[in-house]
Amino acid sequence: MAIVVRNIPRADSAAIEALAAYGVATTHEAQGRIGLLAAYMRPIYRPAKIAGSAVTCEVAPGDNWMIHVAVEQCKPGDVLVVSPTSPCEDGYFGDLLATSLQAHGVRGLIIDAGVRDIAYLTEMGFPVWSRAVFAQGTVKETLGNVNTPVVCAGALINPGDVIVADDDGVCVVRRADASAVAEKARVREANEIDKRARLAAGELGLDIYRMRERLAEKGLVWVDHT
Amino acid sequence: MAIVVRNIPRADSAAIEALAAYGVATTHEAQGRIGLLAAYMRPIYRPAKIAGSAVTCEVAPGDNWMIHVAVEQCKPGDVLVVSPTSPCEDGYFGDLLATSLQAHGVRGLIIDAGVRDIAYLTEMGFPVWSRAVFAQGTVKETLGNVNTPVVCAGALINPGDVIVADDDGVCVVRRADASAVAEKARVREANEIDKRARLAAGELGLDIYRMRERLAEKGLVWVDHT
Amino acid sequence: MAIVVRNIPRADSAAIEALAAYGVATTHEAQGRIGLLAAYMRPIYRPAKIAGSAVTCEVAPGDNWMIHVAVEQCKPGDVLVVSPTSPCEDGYFGDLLATSLQAHGVRGLIIDAGVRDIAYLTEMGFPVWSRAVFAQGTVKETLGNVNTPVVCAGALINPGDVIVADDDGVCVVRRADASAVAEKARVREANEIDKRARLAAGELGLDIYRMRERLAEKGLVWVDHT
Amino acid sequence: MAIVVRNIPRADSAAIEALAAYGVATTHEAQGRIGLLAAYMRPIYRPAKIAGSAVTCEVAPGDNWMIHVAVEQCKPGDVLVVSPTSPCEDGYFGDLLATSLQAHGVRGLIIDAGVRDIAYLTEMGFPVWSRAVFAQGTVKETLGNVNTPVVCAGALINPGDVIVADDDGVCVVRRADASAVAEKARVREANEIDKRARLAAGELGLDIYRMRERLAEKGLVWVDHT
Amino acid sequence: MAIVVRNIPRADSAAIEALAAYGVATTHEAQGRIGLLAAYMRPIYRPAKIAGSAVTCEVAPGDNWMIHVAVEQCKPGDVLVVSPTSPCEDGYFGDLLATSLQAHGVRGLIIDAGVRDIAYLTEMGFPVWSRAVFAQGTVKETLGNVNTPVVCAGALINPGDVIVADDDGVCVVRRADASAVAEKARVREANEIDKRARLAAGELGLDIYRMRERLAEKGLVWVDHT
Amino acid sequence: MAIVVRNIPRADSAAIEALAAYGVATTHEAQGRIGLLAAYMRPIYRPAKIAGSAVTCEVAPGDNWMIHVAVEQCKPGDVLVVSPTSPCEDGYFGDLLATSLQAHGVRGLIIDAGVRDIAYLTEMGFPVWSRAVFAQGTVKETLGNVNTPVVCAGALINPGDVIVADDDGVCVVRRADASAVAEKARVREANEIDKRARLAAGELGLDIYRMRERLAEKGLVWVDHT
Repeated sequence: MAIVVRNIPRADSAAIEALAAYGVATTHEAQGRIGLLAAYMRPIYRPAKIAGSAVTCEVAPGDNWMIHVAVEQCKPGDVLVVSPTSPCEDGYFGDLLATSLQAHGVRGLIIDAGVRDIAYLTEMGFPVWSRAVFAQGTVKETLGNVNTPVVCAGALINPGDVIVADDDGVCVVRRADASAVAEKARVREANEIDKRARLAAGELGLDIYRMRERLAEKGLVWVDHT
Repeated sequence: MAIVVRNIPRADSAAIEALAAYGVATTHEAQGRIGLLAAYMRPIYRPAKIAGSAVTCEVAPGDNWMIHVAVEQCKPGDVLVVSPTSPCEDGYFGDLLATSLQAHGVRGLIIDAGVRDIAYLTEMGFPVWSRAVFAQGTVKETLGNVNTPVVCAGALINPGDVIVADDDGVCVVRRADASAVAEKARVREANEIDKRARLAAGELGLDIYRMRERLAEKGLVWVDHT
Repeated sequence: MAIVVRNIPRADSAAIEALAAYGVATTHEAQGRIGLLAAYMRPIYRPAKIAGSAVTCEVAPGDNWMIHVAVEQCKPGDVLVVSPTSPCEDGYFGDLLATSLQAHGVRGLIIDAGVRDIAYLTEMGFPVWSRAVFAQGTVKETLGNVNTPVVCAGALINPGDVIVADDDGVCVVRRADASAVAEKARVREANEIDKRARLAAGELGLDIYRMRERLAEKGLVWVDHT
Repeated sequence: MAIVVRNIPRADSAAIEALAAYGVATTHEAQGRIGLLAAYMRPIYRPAKIAGSAVTCEVAPGDNWMIHVAVEQCKPGDVLVVSPTSPCEDGYFGDLLATSLQAHGVRGLIIDAGVRDIAYLTEMGFPVWSRAVFAQGTVKETLGNVNTPVVCAGALINPGDVIVADDDGVCVVRRADASAVAEKARVREANEIDKRARLAAGELGLDIYRMRERLAEKGLVWVDHT
Repeated sequence: MAIVVRNIPRADSAAIEALAAYGVATTHEAQGRIGLLAAYMRPIYRPAKIAGSAVTCEVAPGDNWMIHVAVEQCKPGDVLVVSPTSPCEDGYFGDLLATSLQAHGVRGLIIDAGVRDIAYLTEMGFPVWSRAVFAQGTVKETLGNVNTPVVCAGALINPGDVIVADDDGVCVVRRADASAVAEKARVREANEIDKRARLAAGELGLDIYRMRERLAEKGLVWVDHT
Repeated sequence: MAIVVRNIPRADSAAIEALAAYGVATTHEAQGRIGLLAAYMRPIYRPAKIAGSAVTCEVAPGDNWMIHVAVEQCKPGDVLVVSPTSPCEDGYFGDLLATSLQAHGVRGLIIDAGVRDIAYLTEMGFPVWSRAVFAQGTVKETLGNVNTPVVCAGALINPGDVIVADDDGVCVVRRADASAVAEKARVREANEIDKRARLAAGELGLDIYRMRERLAEKGLVWVDHT
């Protein structure tokens, strides 16, 4: 037995748009350095930058049946998150499923497995972050849950959580925290504008962040090369 | 002792051209989901898409001598397949060998090892699928066989088999099966045109493939989020 | 306690410029096939090609404090080399540090760890060779040495050594050897021009390098396919 | 800021003892093939077989401070579960911490990182399942949460969940499900006694599980070697 | 559709027993340094040392159905060789299948995937060489071929080939070559007895193998430490 | 050209014996958390615990010729350290070389590559720490240096440095620092006796190390489970 949960709540769309703009590194910092998926999740093309509400989908190894089920639960602005129940690099996803998701307004796919037809996906502008690129096909035999919490690439993702993905990787933000994190990201970003300008002008981080005293206290010593 | 087999038979050239156009994922499906090389075989640049008859070449670890021998056995339209006798990521292949192969009409290289000079290879448009990019040079001391069956990246490849390679990876088709697989790929591709159009129009795979009944039989249940 | 060594000697700038032009594979061959960093060190964008004097920087796992210290020791034309004291893929380096390094004329970063903000770094044209791309942030708590010898991606790097980096990877040349290696690279490169032309004209390496006799001596046998 | 949750509820002790006896493979099957930690989690010595209630502990990369905090929250029969906030193989845990945990009746450690002093831990009979063995030491600078949900080696673990670990790896059972899973494991195990006897007597699984008809229906054909 | 080939020919039993005694390293050398499976294939317990005729079995990812089919084709003295059609580390094999194979006189299992119940398998003395230990269960839905050639851990294995496996790994010998390889192994082994005695007495390999002259010719120079 | 350096100085033998007894983790801590080789270096059997002066040996990929040369430079109490010039997992070392080294009083082998005949080496009690176990044989064609500095498994090792190796891995101590590090290890070990006793009696590290105040200052909060 398996279940498909319909009509999951989505995150605030203004927060989603904001997080998409700030990107993964800023979002991750803004929420206290949590929520990253594993570093092996890479985009199939660059640059790519999206955010959206997660629709989650469990799949059996070598079996992509449930992705077809999950498509029906997707709404415009969503991001599909697919996680196999045991590690598998098969190519669960290709041009037909991408065409279907794009037709329903889905912004991209996060899959802790393999993807194929990447030349086509690149051409059609449907971004995917995956563990592998592999043409190995899959069967349609085994059920899995849709829109229940999953662990994907080492991170817990609940349906409706916000997924932020760009060239640096993928980050998840809890649905309830989306607006607060977006606000913190805004502050952080604003804060960096001035610093970037000063650094670009040649000022040192050592001075901007006043690190010299604490470094000396910890025992750092400067010596000349002999 | 080692042998070089001359004048191996090649596959039907119409079939080869057809498979080049269909690409790896379709070819692999058309022949019953077999023949893929390991997912770690990646193209040095994208997009890249070729097919050709395999000339096979065994090399010792850290020794590229036999590639020079194999060049002489290549004809226009061939793809060179290089496999080390024990795992090695050294850069067996670079700009000079690529220049030589290109001069003889070879379409690309599949190597279960490392490659170097990739900026140059990219510029000259000579595609390579490899396990690694590594500048580590090699010596010329040890013999190996040319045009005998090899296991390359986990797949058995006979000389004269068809190699299909694109952004998704690499697939091998037995020489005798090339035309039949090309025909199956044609049918499959034709079949997908209609489906792609229906999916692009928003129809669901669940309906197109009539999956709902079988999903329910297996025990899938839809519930509303609470 | 930790030390920062100031005013390290740099390598001869003419040699550095020459090595930048020859690139990693040629440099590595010219100095006798030594000095490569591990094959997992990949550029964040391609093509990229630099050379410069190494400023070395040790960092604790998950702690990028010392990079801020190292910036102050960099001069125009330098390459910053960062190595963690135990393996770590965190994103030690992003847009602000890149802005600062670029402002001081640093040509690029070699880091045996992770990097982030790579879309931004690509846009600003600041090349990085790293083990990973990962948005995971770091803290600023632990000291490390700057401008002492480090092992980075399996290679020993002294401050002031020449770093050569391109699409093939990264190579280190001892400071005292830079001019001699550049000269050997020049000879090697000159030598290849003629060979490349002959190979492009279809001549075989077997003949150019006179390999046939030695192959036969070792026992290579040519047979026709049956 | 970080929190330590005190007095978490534990699972039913009879269920825990039962699951310890059934082991990982049976427990995992009994609860529907879910709950396994990644295959890279290996015991430092064999045989080893435990079950207990999870006390969870987040640690920063290269920083084992919070393990000292977590010890105080452990009670006899517990299993400590440690997960770094970004991937790290440092040796967070050695003989002193093991002595302390053993003194408080803790049954073992599950750590998605490195461990050291394994000769000593083996001698004292304190089992550890880890991602690596590595002597690299850690610092004590950064806070993390104790007894909040963590993702460890790809699995979600809540404080108080049951951890089952043996030579096959590690499995987590939700606290509320422990008794039901133990009962299903008992039934499954009982069921297997008869099958094991029949298989040991030479009867074929094909016949015991009546697979022949379904295999033939799917298209399996037996042919004699020619 | 899939096929099961019955009554495959086996190798000469005297050759098999001889190769079992010589072990993997000697067998591999005796047949000219070919035939090894990948280094990731490790025994679940040590010491373990077997040889036998291969019964080959293809399995789908996460699906162990065909192992049940393969058992029926095994005879006393055989070794079962299981290879998934795409990479998978699931635990395809455990105590019940081992009981069944042992009842039919099978000497061990070679599986390019995962195995479970290893404490039990160790106790019953049924050796397995595998890519992983993982408790993840499998389903029974998809057909595969039995006793057709497979690529397992990078090596081509035909049904009836001789598998030699010990603590060093796994090696395959073609059925037709078994006696000749056994004889070469015997000679090699005999040859080593004298060498081992001389080395044990302190004589140097440099002298026994008369390497000094060739080393000097190649340019080796001895210098005293200064 | 390559060189063999004769009569390298060795470290103080009392310091070596002391470090052997303290083991890797304590030695590594005593010298300030430096000097560890990569975590992938594992002993072929356990328990194993040695220390000795390093004789260093460079080898080409798939070529063990220089190990034969290095044997002659070894004296009783030495540890042979072998590092390939590019990554290679071939089985460079087996029973004959071990017999030879043992005859000359060598205490063990550290090799950043593969080893074979491990059942035999285990039986004869010759410990090896290696990156892999692999039966793949090697050739004898290429020179390398003996007793020059090498990078082995990520660590710089000079001839005559002290190698400490046990079940936790491998650590290098500079020759000149051996006695000082041994003394620091002694103090550290003595210091731990009392702590181990207090921890065994149930006292908490939180109290022994007086961590509570600093934890609270950093913001750690204890709350009861609700």
